[in-house]
This record gives sequence, C-alpha cells and structure tokens, in this order.
Amino acid sequence: MTATAQQLDFIKDSIKSIPDYPKPGILFRDVTSLLEDPVAYAATIALLVERYRDKGITKVVGTEARGFLFGAPVALGLGVGFVPVRKPGKLPRETFQEQYQLEYGTDALELHKDAIVPGDVVLMVDDLLATGGTIEATVKLIRRAGGKVEDAAFVINLFDLSGEARLQALGINCYSLVNFPGH
Amino acid sequence: MTATAQQLDFIKDSIKSIPDYPKPGILFRDVTSLLEDPVAYAATIALLVERYRDKGITKVVGTEARGFLFGAPVALGLGVGFVPVRKPGKLPRETFQEQYQLEYGTDALELHKDAIVPGDVVLMVDDLLATGGTIEATVKLIRRAGGKVEDAAFVINLFDLSGEARLQALGINCYSLVNFPGH
Repeated sequence: MTATAQQLDFIKDSIKSIPDYPKPGILFRDVTSLLEDPVAYAATIALLVERYRDKGITKVVGTEARGFLFGAPVALGLGVGFVPVRKPGKLPRETFQEQYQLEYGTDALELHKDAIVPGDVVLMVDDLLATGGTIEATVKLIRRAGGKVEDAAFVINLFDLSGEARLQALGINCYSLVNFPGH
Repeated sequence: MTATAQQLDFIKDSIKSIPDYPKPGILFRDVTSLLEDPVAYAATIALLVERYRDKGITKVVGTEARGFLFGAPVALGLGVGFVPVRKPGKLPRETFQEQYQLEYGTDALELHKDAIVPGDVVLMVDDLLATGGTIEATVKLIRRAGGKVEDAAFVINLFDLSGEARLQALGINCYSLVNFPGH
C-alpha cells in the first residue's frame, strides 16, 4: 500500500499551524492537534506500519517525548519492541550517551546499552525532522549498541532545513508523510 | 474480559527491578523493559483497551513522558483522541497550568485549554502511580477545561505510597495491572 495524496492531505490538514511560537516569526507545526483527531492519528500510524511491515525491522526507537507518540504505536503495529531514547538521567540501566548541538549550547541523549543487540534492524520514528541533530545522535547511539539502522520515518519534514541530506550522509533513508517549509 | 492472574504475572515479570536507582535504597521498577517485550507491551495495551471499551470514554489524557507510551496506544485502541499533559513551555496553544509538590520544591503541568471540552469523558493513563501528585494536578487541569474524569489506569501501582487513597478522595477510580511495594 502506498499512501494516497488524499490520505496525506487529510493528515496534513489535522496539523494546526501556530504563528509566533516558540518565538516571533516562527510558524510552529502543532502535532498535538493530529493526536486529538482519532481518525488522523490512526491513519498516520497505519501508513507507517504498512510501509515498514515486511522490511525485517526488529526494534523501533523513538526519542523523548514526542517521538514516543508515534514510535510506540508503530512498534506495537509491527509487533516488535519499542526502545526509548531519553534525556540524561532518565534511564535506569547502563546507557550510552551522545551529545548534540542546540542553537545555543549542547544537549545529550541516552540509550540503554542492552536494549539494542547486534543483529537488530532498527527503525527510527519521530514526529518531526528539522535540522536532524537529535536523529543524528540517535543513529550514533544505535550503532554504538551494534544495531543496524538505515530507515527513519517522520510525520513532518521541514524540508528546507536540510535534515534529510544530513541523515542521507549517514546512510539513512528518510520517509515523511507531510512536508512543510521550516522558514 | 477480565485480566487473568496468568496474564498479569506475565506483564509483571517483564518489568525489571533496578536496585539503588535513582538513589541508594530505592528499588526502581523499570517499565522500559516491558516496552522492549512486544508481547508484554501488546498484552498491556489490550487489557486496558478491553477494560474501558464500552465506558463512553471520549478522550485519553497522558502525562509527559512515560504516560505517552501507554496513553497514546490506549487512545488509538479506543478510537478516541489523545491529549498530552506536558511540562511548562512545551504546548504551543493556550494552556491551563497546575503546580504540584516535589520532594523538594514544586513543578507544574499544562493542558491545552481547547483540547478538552465540556461533555468529554476522560480516562487518564499513566505508567506508574506513586504518591499521585502529578495525577492530582492532571485531574485539576481536566476539570478546569470542563471535562468529566472518574477513571485512571496505571500499569504499576506502588500500593503502599497512598496514591490510590489520594485519588479516591478526588472521586477517581484507580485500576492498576501490577502492584509493587514502593518502600
């Protein structure tokens, strides 16, 4: 099954655009309005599950917090485990840690060392692809744990922020249901 | 369908116990190990969906971040919208805010004002009930928005921390799949 233009327009229309958030001049794409529409939310998950159903995926990884909202249902739909990537200090077992750049300063993400094992084929799922910084850190974490990761799925791609090119340079194929300009 | 003891034991066994986390003397119940087991995770969601299927629920509310992992799939299973409650500054539309007590100091949670409307019948879903502070704040947020909320479902209840009594005093019926001591 390939998503139809009609299905994708319906999902896109469920995403509200909020002017001047989080600061003046930014038009924020609000995925919580998609979650509040049970038909749009179910359609989003169904399209992602269909796309990756026969691809040999063994784990889905999603990044705190909005990545949980799409990654966890996709993992359930594929019948594979869900592995959360979280901010430092949130995961109780031994972790790998990777830093990434913010507009000002750095932040870090962690993955349980034993949650991905060599042989795992991992799909990353997140709500939104912007510059790709957090996804790049997530790729590094998965590969440090020995997992193979070649696919990342997003609900929204802010297509003019070059996230896709950055991830392609790491050998990641990106798929997004909806495109918006980021500027 | 009522959950069998065998089903509940299977779910309980998927939850790892981590000694001395986040500090010495605490035995932390690690729900990420449940997520990594696709059968235990699917069983958890199926039992919660079955329990609330014919109860007239119109929205599911889950609190950042682990509440998303159970609340969102339960909302999808019930065919109703999912409404996230988040830390301050994360939700882009107009919000209500409620403070709650931490061991040292206070924190706050927010809900989009327009995400719950009068007439909504809300189910709260979270991973773990401890003292009930964040759930009490969530009840207040839902009621300020005009929603009716009488049910809260948890994967884990730390039964000796009095969370259930605190929520019962607010008129909330609690249901938990698994019980552990909190001390």
